[in-house]
Amino acid sequence: MKRYEKFADEIAQLIRTGVLAPGEKVPSVRHASRTYGISPSTVFQAYYLLESRGLIVARARSGYFVRAHAQRPLHEPEISARQAQTSDVDVSELVFSVLGSLKDPDTVPFGSAFPSPDLFPLARLARSMSQSVRDMPPQAVIADMTEGNPDLRRQIALRYMISGVMLPQEELVITNGAMEALNLCLQCVTAPGDLVAIEAPAFYATLQVLERLKLKAVEIPVHPREGIDLDSLTASLEQLPIKACWFMSSLQNPLGASMGEDKKRALYDLLQRHQVPLIEDDVYAELYFGTQPPKSVKSFDRDGLVMHCGSFSKCLAPGYRVGWVAGGRFATAIHRLKLMTTISPSVPAQAAIADYLQHGGFDRHLRKLRHALEAQQGSMLASAARHFPVETRVTHPDGGYFLWFEFPQQVDSLQLFRLALAQGISLAPGPIFSATRRFSNCARLNYGHPWDAQSEQAMALLGRILDSF
Amino acid sequence: MKRYEKFADEIAQLIRTGVLAPGEKVPSVRHASRTYGISPSTVFQAYYLLESRGLIVARARSGYFVRAHAQRPLHEPEISARQAQTSDVDVSELVFSVLGSLKDPDTVPFGSAFPSPDLFPLARLARSMSQSVRDMPPQAVIADMTEGNPDLRRQIALRYMISGVMLPQEELVITNGAMEALNLCLQCVTAPGDLVAIEAPAFYATLQVLERLKLKAVEIPVHPREGIDLDSLTASLEQLPIKACWFMSSLQNPLGASMGEDKKRALYDLLQRHQVPLIEDDVYAELYFGTQPPKSVKSFDRDGLVMHCGSFSKCLAPGYRVGWVAGGRFATAIHRLKLMTTISPSVPAQAAIADYLQHGGFDRHLRKLRHALEAQQGSMLASAARHFPVETRVTHPDGGYFLWFEFPQQVDSLQLFRLALAQGISLAPGPIFSATRRFSNCARLNYGHPWDAQSEQAMALLGRILDSF
Repeated sequence: MKRYEKFADEIAQLIRTGVLAPGEKVPSVRHASRTYGISPSTVFQAYYLLESRGLIVARARSGYFVRAHAQRPLHEPEISARQAQTSDVDVSELVFSVLGSLKDPDTVPFGSAFPSPDLFPLARLARSMSQSVRDMPPQAVIADMTEGNPDLRRQIALRYMISGVMLPQEELVITNGAMEALNLCLQCVTAPGDLVAIEAPAFYATLQVLERLKLKAVEIPVHPREGIDLDSLTASLEQLPIKACWFMSSLQNPLGASMGEDKKRALYDLLQRHQVPLIEDDVYAELYFGTQPPKSVKSFDRDGLVMHCGSFSKCLAPGYRVGWVAGGRFATAIHRLKLMTTISPSVPAQAAIADYLQHGGFDRHLRKLRHALEAQQGSMLASAARHFPVETRVTHPDGGYFLWFEFPQQVDSLQLFRLALAQGISLAPGPIFSATRRFSNCARLNYGHPWDAQSEQAMALLGRILDSF
Repeated sequence: MKRYEKFADEIAQLIRTGVLAPGEKVPSVRHASRTYGISPSTVFQAYYLLESRGLIVARARSGYFVRAHAQRPLHEPEISARQAQTSDVDVSELVFSVLGSLKDPDTVPFGSAFPSPDLFPLARLARSMSQSVRDMPPQAVIADMTEGNPDLRRQIALRYMISGVMLPQEELVITNGAMEALNLCLQCVTAPGDLVAIEAPAFYATLQVLERLKLKAVEIPVHPREGIDLDSLTASLEQLPIKACWFMSSLQNPLGASMGEDKKRALYDLLQRHQVPLIEDDVYAELYFGTQPPKSVKSFDRDGLVMHCGSFSKCLAPGYRVGWVAGGRFATAIHRLKLMTTISPSVPAQAAIADYLQHGGFDRHLRKLRHALEAQQGSMLASAARHFPVETRVTHPDGGYFLWFEFPQQVDSLQLFRLALAQGISLAPGPIFSATRRFSNCARLNYGHPWDAQSEQAMALLGRILDSF
């Protein structure tokens, strides 16, 4: 990272954490240059960058100011209450009806699960693909099916190493996206009827998988900023024969919450004491806005209890369908299960990603992607403050591309979903994120698409529908 | 197909069906030209082709003769006996130990499940891949995940149409190879503990899937030439609450048996009366040696009871992991199940195959592939007749790339497997093809690799091991 990028990130961090409040003046170029010992042109470059990311604005003859996202910034939601009971899961029909609504390309895709494909280096990836299929030895198309592309395995293991996790390559199973990894992990450690601890709210696919495998959900509340409530989890582990946990410890979907490092370590210690395996869904790991990548719970794993699932779908190559799991002590069982169900992810797709990781400039792309998402988050937050009811609460996640809105009590988000869709706007209503159909006044909105006039109009229209409840 | 190719295929058909016996003289060029009304040069071209396919040999000044595959051709095995009981399945460990043996690239791959990658148009496919990723609109990488690549769907539906099956495109679900399709189909129509009718011997992956899903197997004997024994199936359907059938009606793995058209229709009628769904595993459909593609049971389906599973892995693009199912009345349920488990096969792989199907010359490639496999079958059959004990029985399938050997009773094929592997030769021992570990004196050998001196030596060595029992 260049010096000006680093300085820009430091300022961005101050803005995000509220040290520099909206409307406040950022240090003048002269002041910053003197105080931080960097050249004025470096400061200028950093401020241009922050301006392009939508975080600060220049005012003629006055210098730079933190963009006033909101005259009246919306508050954060509070943590949901603990549910004592376990639940059968029956949410699939509802999820499919919501997903079905996303097919129309003219719909404003606030309900989408993906960021805009324009944010990904698809042309550069296509070059990696052409290169690698041209150079692929014929034997590889068969051999790479069992073990996965060796270069890709090495690249993934390297990235673990750089993040501080020394991973034996044998632990890695390459899968058809993280979704397959998560499915396989859960099948490895549960049988129908078993209890699985999940988050409340949870990613709806988690609920669908539990439903499909006839597992029962124990919902653990998630704090919108700090993640899983460990006291609730402790109580559940002591009272119930929980067979596995499926958590997103960083940039949780839908809340965007990330547990701190100490909390992650404590979570691992707790599960280790109970010998309950953790399926760590970490697909948003690369989409953090700060300067430091969040650590995974896997990084504290001493005895192979954590199955750490990742993917290139959200950060590099949507549609290529390449993910993985670092399976800990379950790696062999997961690998065999994969051979029995889909055999292998596409060999050319693996080779293309391996080539890109070596030669494509992944880290440069990631920095660009993070900055774009951060700017878009600012735009959606500001727009929500302008248009949504003043009692609305919203998360301020440190990454990803989702905001979670808690609307006034009287708002029925399923009804909101239907009314908005009739106007060409999709969203993900709260009840699809819960086994017990809670969060009826909540919704997840996707800010992963470049912000434009249409987005702004859509927010205004949503605001008018919200006012009508 | 050119005229000389057509004529060559007709002669090949006569050889295969025994009308022209080994050692027999084929019609002279002059005679053939006069009798069939084709030019002498066309006849010559056809005979050259048949010679290159290893079916006929030229003798100086005497003309062409059917190659004497065997001085003492081996007999076909007989149909296995019906087993009255149902069985829990527990074969996975054994299968994995056999599959593990295939990793060493220096092993003679008679145990492999794949033909040689050199038989596939990988370079042409690579061009289709480059072209299609370069031209892919960004939206497609996301949109094509739910429904699959529209061109690919259309091309597959077109091939169904040409084969006489009018398939609404909505019935098609694109999957990660046929293996995923088969898994999804079975999950759609069964619950743990249910009975599923399978073949004896059966493809070992079938057994692994049943084991994984905790289903019980009802083994139906398969005649080495005529396929499933309908009387046994009828009896089982009348006596047992069978929930689904999983059969390969053409070029069955491992026997290579193909049911005749009337028998396929009768099978459909039987299942229709009992309203038992059929999962038709038809992955070898394109590898027939005759002039006419075998019909599928699906082609007789009037009420959506048949789930017809196909793949490009065995006939075009191994490692790309693109298959499909024409899911009949179960299509929506299968599609949803797929969205919950792997979401989608790789979008670029789908696009590459779609492009190849439109512009790559698929039918030309298939003709070449069939001819290569047919010649290699002849070589392995002849070699087996030279080297294996005279009481050995072997199938003579009309396609595919497997031979099924029934050795003398005292041969223990698991022991044979271990002894051969120690000498650098793999094979697939009989017991992995049975839920009840039958076929202990049988083995499946793969002739999907170009025949050379090493293959011949390996057969001789196997012969010596067989003699030692």
